[in-house]
Amino acid sequence: MKAKLTLFAAVLSIFIFNCSLLSFAEGPASIQLPAPQKQGGKPLMAALSERMSGRSFTGEKLPMQTLSNLLWAAFGINRPDGRRTAPSAKNWQETDVYVATPDGAYLYDAAKNTLNPVVTKDIRAMTGTQPFVKDASVNLIYVSDYSKIGEGSTDKQILIGADVGVIAENVYLFCASEGLATVLRAGIDRDQLAKELKLGPDRKITFAQSVGYPKKQ
Amino acid sequence: MKAKLTLFAAVLSIFIFNCSLLSFAEGPASIQLPAPQKQGGKPLMAALSERMSGRSFTGEKLPMQTLSNLLWAAFGINRPDGRRTAPSAKNWQETDVYVATPDGAYLYDAAKNTLNPVVTKDIRAMTGTQPFVKDASVNLIYVSDYSKIGEGSTDKQILIGADVGVIAENVYLFCASEGLATVLRAGIDRDQLAKELKLGPDRKITFAQSVGYPKKQ
Repeated sequence: MKAKLTLFAAVLSIFIFNCSLLSFAEGPASIQLPAPQKQGGKPLMAALSERMSGRSFTGEKLPMQTLSNLLWAAFGINRPDGRRTAPSAKNWQETDVYVATPDGAYLYDAAKNTLNPVVTKDIRAMTGTQPFVKDASVNLIYVSDYSKIGEGSTDKQILIGADVGVIAENVYLFCASEGLATVLRAGIDRDQLAKELKLGPDRKITFAQSVGYPKKQ
Repeated sequence: MKAKLTLFAAVLSIFIFNCSLLSFAEGPASIQLPAPQKQGGKPLMAALSERMSGRSFTGEKLPMQTLSNLLWAAFGINRPDGRRTAPSAKNWQETDVYVATPDGAYLYDAAKNTLNPVVTKDIRAMTGTQPFVKDASVNLIYVSDYSKIGEGSTDKQILIGADVGVIAENVYLFCASEGLATVLRAGIDRDQLAKELKLGPDRKITFAQSVGYPKKQ
């Protein structure tokens, strides 16, 4: 009986050791975002009246609730069948939204409402060629997953561009509603940032979008 | 004195005749839209909750006030310097919005808030390859003016696509707010439609978007 128990303890230890290795290999745990607040905000026409681009940020952090609301507005799930706040060509849903904050960079998982860590350092300055990007509370990075795009589609680039534009406009209107500044940007060192985000060959960075509290002029 | 008056009358007649010829050469007059209502609508987060694509229309006409509000929401001017409700890469503002209604097809002039007639017949059915497009109250046709796009821009197609996407999302949210159905579409016989709209070689049709009252399921 004692031998059996020893064997069991040994097997258990190996199992626990492997689990901890697995957990280590997976990196830091996902961050659960608070549930997005799906009501409220300015009346739509007022948000459209105030829609603008802003390039001057205080650097102040976004509260987690605001970040959750922002990401849901951008490209969250708004129906039980998994469809989203922004459309995509042929419902490919090929655009991934990465988020660079002062704490690290994360991939937004709309289904689980989590941020999955990708980089554990502040890479905000690497998300664009303009000096203001480092001062944004967050920089969203739009990555198109070409493996989700159907074969034989003509003029893919224009479809992919539109699929980012619809998400970006949701962000613009959310920012207009919340008194935040934002700007969609194409000036990015894509090779460097793709390396930092560990993107495979199917994933291409299209645009980035800075979001934050506007500096008083 | 009498001779002078006769000469004056003759000159005036020629002037008036020339003016009427000019007016005839210009085609039907522009339609002045009512001023857009820039307040109201659902709270932004509620509009985002209800954002969806709809492909089934009753064919009922849009009131002129709703059409004016729709076009202003899409890509109207929201600031004294002429900037718009949707951004564009480098502020090119290269996207023209054409509107096909049961009465004809028009080019939206955001600065004057007018519809400038281009075609005097119903071409809604020609704006897309899907059968439902003929039943939409209006079909918006997005045309990119390549003459406004800077030289040396890399990956123009993705920028042009995004510049349409931001406008299209404004339309989606306006429709969600107003209980209208809408869908952005790329299935278009572009050569035929370009001929119908008398587009020059610099102007390319990118997408169309149907808008109308949803058929009760």
